[in-house]
Amino acid sequence: MTVTVAKGFLAAGVKAGLKSSGNKDLALVLNQGPLKAAAVVFTTNRCQANPIIWSKQVISDGEVSAIVLNSGGANCYTGPQGFQTTHATAEKVAEVLSISAGDVLVCSTGLIGEQLDLNKLTNGVSAAAAELSAEAGQSAAEAIMTTDSVSKTANLVSSSGWSVGGMAKGAGMLAPGLATMLVVITTDAVVDSSQLDKTLRAATRVTFDRLDSDGCMSTNDQVTLMASGASEVTPDPDEFQAAVTAVCHDLAQQLLRDAEGSSHDIAIEVANAASEDDAVEVGRSVARNNLFKAAIYGNDPNWGRILAAVGVTKAAFDPYDIDVEINGISVSRKGQPDLSRDLVDLTPRAVAIRISLNAGTKSATIYTNDLTHEYVTENSAYSS
Amino acid sequence: MTVTVAKGFLAAGVKAGLKSSGNKDLALVLNQGPLKAAAVVFTTNRCQANPIIWSKQVISDGEVSAIVLNSGGANCYTGPQGFQTTHATAEKVAEVLSISAGDVLVCSTGLIGEQLDLNKLTNGVSAAAAELSAEAGQSAAEAIMTTDSVSKTANLVSSSGWSVGGMAKGAGMLAPGLATMLVVITTDAVVDSSQLDKTLRAATRVTFDRLDSDGCMSTNDQVTLMASGASEVTPDPDEFQAAVTAVCHDLAQQLLRDAEGSSHDIAIEVANAASEDDAVEVGRSVARNNLFKAAIYGNDPNWGRILAAVGVTKAAFDPYDIDVEINGISVSRKGQPDLSRDLVDLTPRAVAIRISLNAGTKSATIYTNDLTHEYVTENSAYSS
Repeated sequence: MTVTVAKGFLAAGVKAGLKSSGNKDLALVLNQGPLKAAAVVFTTNRCQANPIIWSKQVISDGEVSAIVLNSGGANCYTGPQGFQTTHATAEKVAEVLSISAGDVLVCSTGLIGEQLDLNKLTNGVSAAAAELSAEAGQSAAEAIMTTDSVSKTANLVSSSGWSVGGMAKGAGMLAPGLATMLVVITTDAVVDSSQLDKTLRAATRVTFDRLDSDGCMSTNDQVTLMASGASEVTPDPDEFQAAVTAVCHDLAQQLLRDAEGSSHDIAIEVANAASEDDAVEVGRSVARNNLFKAAIYGNDPNWGRILAAVGVTKAAFDPYDIDVEINGISVSRKGQPDLSRDLVDLTPRAVAIRISLNAGTKSATIYTNDLTHEYVTENSAYSS
Repeated sequence: MTVTVAKGFLAAGVKAGLKSSGNKDLALVLNQGPLKAAAVVFTTNRCQANPIIWSKQVISDGEVSAIVLNSGGANCYTGPQGFQTTHATAEKVAEVLSISAGDVLVCSTGLIGEQLDLNKLTNGVSAAAAELSAEAGQSAAEAIMTTDSVSKTANLVSSSGWSVGGMAKGAGMLAPGLATMLVVITTDAVVDSSQLDKTLRAATRVTFDRLDSDGCMSTNDQVTLMASGASEVTPDPDEFQAAVTAVCHDLAQQLLRDAEGSSHDIAIEVANAASEDDAVEVGRSVARNNLFKAAIYGNDPNWGRILAAVGVTKAAFDPYDIDVEINGISVSRKGQPDLSRDLVDLTPRAVAIRISLNAGTKSATIYTNDLTHEYVTENSAYSS
């Protein structure tokens, strides 16, 4: 059901011919209302793709009728011709759906620096419009896949009569500012755009923003939340926040599990920090340390590499009063070895690192992957 | 000749039994004077090894008579027992050479979190002291190798009658704040410790600090410069600065070429920046981008990954007025594709990236390596 679990939304996923594989590569999601409220969080990368530049204009009034997403090309660093392609795509969606182009978000993903074929895009839009249905959420989720090995979807139905559904794509360039990906979340709850914005930012801050698979931030990130109001139910704000956060968390964990070439999913919990920012900074530094990530790939509980990564941060701590646990084994306490590293079993896919800074009461968990031969292969063997 | 090219210095490299391979693992360098001036630059990692803590005390008065270096163990995060091991090593050197322990620098390299065998260390010091000679510079350079495939040495003889020699070890954890390594540089020029300090900092800033092989900063970095004054020649300050910088550059390039598992040496020149700091920040961001590094391994001129890495920095630039060249081919200009990426030949080991920010007149070059299967293997297959 994914994005179509929420009433008022239709979706489609079609083959536009943009991908050389011939797989589905264009998705369309239409909000039939009665509301057309929306909120978007964009990449913080300063080198932004043409669909990002376009979509920032579209969302400025908080109203969105449809979103069109293509894989097979990022349409980034493609100059005025590339922007015209994005604009013409939105105009085509507006024409076939009888809506305003100013209410059409555009997302693209794929290789940077190549022009998209506008003819294929507009034909794809026509085909998608013809296939729009309340049953095609799964098909749309498949059409946004790039190096993803599986489609990512989530949904949550409230007992109060409203629901939240979502789809995501992303398997590399997963990093902060926004874990790099395209995400569309829909709801039939009655929520205005300013509450959507507040809710979405609060949810991404503790979910997608805590994902740091390979430290690389993309030029095309976009997370969109659209509300149709079709349930006619105004949700309790706390329950709605919890639902959107839960869907974001679910999708983020699916992105983590499907990260390119990974063999371990690593949760780095930084506890007893002086501030949440400190905890995030320390967790991210460890998550981005290639020596640590390669050690985990080799099932090597090399805790010295963890402390070396902690030591380059500006977080508050006494370097000789830090404790480190790996999969529940206390391997280092107060600047010294504790239990033998040989007790640590790193054969399971899930790895839990716990770093106690002993400097306060705040905590945060950053999620990352190991650095594997397969990651290098996937990112060197072809352009993406 | 390495560190013994400068008159007044003796060296030795011996097998102390610290390395499981049975190779040489302890080096000793003695300054016979008449001067015993020295300067040291340390890692900026806050998690510092015991030899770093010790050596910071030793250098505080600018006087050093000897330096002892061991491979086979980092003596980091080994608590009071580890500090006692460092202290006892310096005391042993002082005893056998009839000098003050407060004038003995100690360096260690190897796995973090394991105690060194003090008995082996002190026996090694005795053996090294017995073998000290003006011909053993090469032997000392071999004794500090860890995952290095070759020893690194350099020397430069001035026509004015003084010389500079150096040795270095390092093949991983090469990163900023100080490219991670142990380096000993000697000179027989007549230079006091304050000029040595100024000269060494100026040299490392534009050589070792511009090396960023894998973004990981070690806990044990130390670059030492010692002057014996034995040539009885006071050098021209500019010529002396140029000589020390040349030796540092030579050693830094040797570290780059021997970086673990690398198949390309990449020079990232950032030109037309508003400030040198901006140029360094941009170069470092690209040097640390795993997707870019994996693409170079695959001989893929994926310039979009370069711009995506530029875009996460705070440097001054207009994102759509950046030019990128790879090996002399202009692949992107002003936010658009320029010449075909197919024209770029990435089969040679040396890769030249040129990024023009078009925001000023400053420039800097950062040196890095590609991300290869062999890097992952070397850093996952065993603890180091």
